Amino acid sequence: MEHKVIDVTIRDGGLVNDFDFSVEMVRSIYDGLNQAGIDYMEIGYKNSPKLLKGESSGPWRFLDDRFLRQVIEAKGATKLSCLVDIGRVDESDILPREESLLDLVRVACYIKDVPKAIELVNKFHQLGYETSINIMALSNVRDYELKEGLQLINESPVDLVYVVDSFGNLLNRDIEYYVEFFQKYVPQKTIGIHTHNNLQLAFSNTLVAMHKGTTFLDSSLFGMGRAAGNCPTELLFRVLNDAKYDLRPILKLLQEWMIPLREKVEWGYTVPYALTGMLNEHPRTAMALRNSEEKDEYLSYYDRLTSVETYNK
Amino acid sequence: MEHKVIDVTIRDGGLVNDFDFSVEMVRSIYDGLNQAGIDYMEIGYKNSPKLLKGESSGPWRFLDDRFLRQVIEAKGATKLSCLVDIGRVDESDILPREESLLDLVRVACYIKDVPKAIELVNKFHQLGYETSINIMALSNVRDYELKEGLQLINESPVDLVYVVDSFGNLLNRDIEYYVEFFQKYVPQKTIGIHTHNNLQLAFSNTLVAMHKGTTFLDSSLFGMGRAAGNCPTELLFRVLNDAKYDLRPILKLLQEWMIPLREKVEWGYTVPYALTGMLNEHPRTAMALRNSEEKDEYLSYYDRLTSVETYNK
Repeated sequence: MEHKVIDVTIRDGGLVNDFDFSVEMVRSIYDGLNQAGIDYMEIGYKNSPKLLKGESSGPWRFLDDRFLRQVIEAKGATKLSCLVDIGRVDESDILPREESLLDLVRVACYIKDVPKAIELVNKFHQLGYETSINIMALSNVRDYELKEGLQLINESPVDLVYVVDSFGNLLNRDIEYYVEFFQKYVPQKTIGIHTHNNLQLAFSNTLVAMHKGTTFLDSSLFGMGRAAGNCPTELLFRVLNDAKYDLRPILKLLQEWMIPLREKVEWGYTVPYALTGMLNEHPRTAMALRNSEEKDEYLSYYDRLTSVETYNK
Repeated sequence: MEHKVIDVTIRDGGLVNDFDFSVEMVRSIYDGLNQAGIDYMEIGYKNSPKLLKGESSGPWRFLDDRFLRQVIEAKGATKLSCLVDIGRVDESDILPREESLLDLVRVACYIKDVPKAIELVNKFHQLGYETSINIMALSNVRDYELKEGLQLINESPVDLVYVVDSFGNLLNRDIEYYVEFFQKYVPQKTIGIHTHNNLQLAFSNTLVAMHKGTTFLDSSLFGMGRAAGNCPTELLFRVLNDAKYDLRPILKLLQEWMIPLREKVEWGYTVPYALTGMLNEHPRTAMALRNSEEKDEYLSYYDRLTSVETYNK
C-alpha cells in the first residue's frame, strides 16, 4: 500500500520556537525533504494577521504567496501544504491553486466546528486545492458526535480526514479503534494520522494506523512539535520501503539544523508532558511549567493537576 | 490479568554510568519503588569479580549479600532480583535463598548458550530462588534455533522466560510474533518482556506484549538503560490499574535522582541509536560516537555503518 508523508516540522515545530525559522533553514529543509522523497512539506499556517490580533509570529504563521516564491526557488516533487484554523483565515487572501505554490490546505477544527470546516473546504476545493479536515482532540470527543461529524464530512468534497491525537493520550488500541471508526463513517475519504509523543507512542501509533490502512502520515524532523512533539520523520524510514525514500538527506537536515535548534529550544518527551498525556489534557500547563524555574518539580505539579481545588478554580 | 513490573534502573542503568550509584540513591530508589507498588527491583549483577578481570565497577556489578543487607535496611513487598551472565558467575558465591535478600536470579544468555543457562538455573532453583532465562538479541536468532532452545527451556525448572529486544530493532508486529512463538514453545512458563528504545518503541512494545498475555514487564526510571534505554517505569502507570500502584513515589524519584543524573550522563533516544536499531546492530558503535567529538555527525556515521568497506574490515 502506498503511503504519503507530510513533514510538519515548520508548522507544528513553529509552535515551539514562535516560528523563528530563517528563510535559509526552511529552504534547506524543503530541498532535503525533496531529496529524501518526502511527499509533502507543511510550511506553515495560512491564517490572517488581521484575525490574529496581538500575535506577531513572522511569515510562517501567515504564509503569503509572493513570499513563498522567494523561499522555494525550485519546486520539486515534494508538494506544499498549509494549515488554517477556523475563524482565523481570511478567504480573500487565498489565490487559486494555479497561482500558488501550495497544493494542500488542511483545516484544523474541533468536532463542534465541522460545519464551518466544511464551508472552508468547499471554498478551497473550488479554488483547486487538495483539502483535508483534521479533527483535533479526538480523545475528548464522544462517539455519537464523531459519527455525526464524519457523516457530514463524508458528503463534502474534502479529500483527506485526519485522526489527530492532540493530547498524546491515545494508546495503540485506541488508534486502531479510531481508524476503524473513520473507515466506517468516511468510506469515501483518504485517512491520515497525526500523533503526539507524550507517552512515547507517536511513532508506534503511526505504525498502527499504517497497518490499519491509513494513507497519510504526519511526522517532523527529530519529532519537533508542540510540547512532546510528533512522530519523528527519521523513524518512518524503518518502514517506508518505496525506493524513492532516502534517509541520508534527512540525517543531513538533523545534524545541520535540528540538533543545533534543539540545544536552544525544548521539545520532546518530558515527565510533565507524560502527565498531561496520561490525564488526557492539553499540554499548556506543562508547557508553562517547563518554561519556569520549577520545570522538574513533578510531584507538586502532579498534585496540582489532580487536586479537587484546582478543578474548582 | 495480573502483571509484575521489574524496575531495572540500577542494573541496566548501571551500564550507562559504570554503576556509579551511591548507597543512598539505591536505598531511596528501593523505598520509592516499594511505595509505588513495583513488584521487583533489579539491584545489579551478581557476577564474580574473579571472572571479570580488568573490570572494576563497584558493588552493584558484584552484588554481595552482606553488603546488600546494609543497603536494604527494611525489605518491603518489593522483591529483589539480580542478573547473571553465563561464564561470569561463580556459583560458590551464591547463598541459599533463605540467607539472601535476593528473590529472583535472572540468567542472560545468547541462544547458543541455553544449555549453560539451564545448568545455572538448576543450581539457583535448588537454592530456592525464582529463576528466569533472558534470551538476548532475539532479532538475530533463527526460528528453528529459537524453537529448539525454548523446547529445552520448557523441560527445565525455570519460572520465567524473557523476550529481549537487545538492539531495539523489533516493531510491534515482531513482538506479537515472538510472544506467540514463546507461548507455543514454552507453554509451562511465565513470559516476560525487556525492550530498548532505539526506535521509540520500548513502551509500545511492552504494551503489545502485555495485551498478548506477557506477565513480567521490565522498565526503568526515565528509561535509564544502555544506549537508547528501556521502557520508562513512569509510563507504565498509564495502564497499570491495580490499586496497589501509585505514581507519586515514582515522580519523586524522577525529580530527586534521575533528572540530576541525566544532566551528567546520557541515555535515551538519539539518532545514532535509531540507526543501529534500524540496522539491527548492537549499539556499541553508536555509544562510541556519542562519547566522541563527532557525536552529532550522523551522515558520516551512517555511511560508515552501511559501507561495504566497513564490513570487509
